[in-house]
Amino acid sequence: MSAKSLTKGSPAPGPVPAGMIRVYSMRYCPFAHRTLLVLEAKGIKYETVNINLLDKPDWFSEKNPLGLVPVLETCQNELVYDSPITCEFLDDKYPAKRLIPSDPYEKAKQKMLLEHFSKVVGFMYRIQAERRKSMDTSKMEQDLQVQLINFEQKLVERKTRFFGGDSVSMVDYLIWPWFDRMEAFSFHKYLEKAPKLQQWMKLMRQDPATKATTHDPDTYRGFSELYFGGNPAACDYRL
Amino acid sequence: MSAKSLTKGSPAPGPVPAGMIRVYSMRYCPFAHRTLLVLEAKGIKYETVNINLLDKPDWFSEKNPLGLVPVLETCQNELVYDSPITCEFLDDKYPAKRLIPSDPYEKAKQKMLLEHFSKVVGFMYRIQAERRKSMDTSKMEQDLQVQLINFEQKLVERKTRFFGGDSVSMVDYLIWPWFDRMEAFSFHKYLEKAPKLQQWMKLMRQDPATKATTHDPDTYRGFSELYFGGNPAACDYRL
Repeated sequence: MSAKSLTKGSPAPGPVPAGMIRVYSMRYCPFAHRTLLVLEAKGIKYETVNINLLDKPDWFSEKNPLGLVPVLETCQNELVYDSPITCEFLDDKYPAKRLIPSDPYEKAKQKMLLEHFSKVVGFMYRIQAERRKSMDTSKMEQDLQVQLINFEQKLVERKTRFFGGDSVSMVDYLIWPWFDRMEAFSFHKYLEKAPKLQQWMKLMRQDPATKATTHDPDTYRGFSELYFGGNPAACDYRL
Repeated sequence: MSAKSLTKGSPAPGPVPAGMIRVYSMRYCPFAHRTLLVLEAKGIKYETVNINLLDKPDWFSEKNPLGLVPVLETCQNELVYDSPITCEFLDDKYPAKRLIPSDPYEKAKQKMLLEHFSKVVGFMYRIQAERRKSMDTSKMEQDLQVQLINFEQKLVERKTRFFGGDSVSMVDYLIWPWFDRMEAFSFHKYLEKAPKLQQWMKLMRQDPATKATTHDPDTYRGFSELYFGGNPAACDYRL
C-alpha cells in the first residue's frame, strides 16, 4: 500500500501473479479505501498499484474507461471497477468470510442504507469545496447534521452495535472511509448529538481492517490541501 | 396493474395478504417498470398499488422516505425501495428462476454495465427537458448516440444475443424500460448504426415479461405531456 504512485509515462504493470489479486488504488481515496477494507477484512492476498490521479498513466483507461480508482484485476485478467461493485465481487469471489448478509431483506437494507449514505458523501464534498472558496456553508452543514442524525437513529432502532447487526459487516466498511476522515475535515463536531454513532466509530477503530488502512487527520488534511490545489505530489504525500 | 392511482386522502391499503408481494408503482414510471419486469419474468404472485406521484397520499412517505416508486412490501411488513435493490431482492427472495448470474465476474459485469447505462438515462431525461424549453439539444443527442454505440459494441464484443449471454437476464430487464420508450420520444433514430442493439430489442419485445408490461408509443407520449405539465391526471392516463 505504500508504493509510490504510477504517473504518465510509467510502464504498465505485468500480469497479476497466480493466486493474487491486484487493486489499483490511491493512498488517500475514500472509494478505494472501501476495497482495501474488504481485502483486509477477508484476509485476501493482494498487491496494490497506486495511480497518480492528477497525472494518470495513459494505459490506465484500459483498466477503467472512467479513469477512477478502485479497480480490481485478477490473474484471469478480469477487471472490476466502481467501489461497491468491487466489494461485492470480492465477497462473492472469496466466500470464506462473508460480509454481505445472506438474508435477502438484511442485504436489501444494507443497500438502501448505502443509498442514503450517498447524501452524506455529497454534503461532505460540497461543504469542503465551498469552504475552499470561503463561501457560507452553514445551511449545508445543518443538512449534513440531519443526515448524520438519521444514521444515529438507524442504530437506535436496530439496537445493534454495528449497522448490520452485532458484528461488523459490509455496510460498515462501505461507509467507514468518510467517518475515518471526519476529524480531519472538522465534521466530527456534528456527532455530538449522536452517542450511538460515536460508540460505533470507537468499535470500528478497533477493527484490524480499519487499523491497517487508516491515516491520521493531519495526513488526510495535508493530502487534501495539495490535491485540491491540483498538485500531483498529493497522491504520494508523506511517502 | 390497471388500478387507478391512490392520491392525497386515499386510505392506506391493508396488510399484504399471505403468499403475496405488493409493488407500489406508477403505470408509466420506467424505474417501477424494472420491478414489474422481474416480477413477471419470475412468475411471482403480486399485487400492484399505483401511486399518483403528482398528488401523493401522506402515508406513502412511511413506505419510502424518498417518496419514490417502486417500493416492494411483503406480508412480513418488509419494505424495499430503489429499483435495482427491489430487483435484486426479488431474485434473492424467490430463487426459483435466477436472473442474476451466479458467477462473480459475470454478476460484476452486469453491475458495471448498469452504471454505464445511468448515463443513457441521464441524457434521455435532459434532452426531453430541454426540448420542452425548445432549446438546442443537438450536442446532447450526439452524446446519447455515442453512449448507445458503446452498448452496441458490448454486444459485438460479447458475441451474444442478450447483454448477459444468449438468454435474457437481469441486466436486460434493468435497461429495457428506456428502450421501450425510445420510439415514443424519437430516440430510436439513434439506433440506425446499431444493428445488434436493434436485434436485441426485437428479441426483447418477444419476451413474455416485456409484453405484459409495455405501452404503445402514443400512450407514453400522452402521459409524458400531461406529467411534465404537472397534471395529476397523467398517472391514470388512458385508464
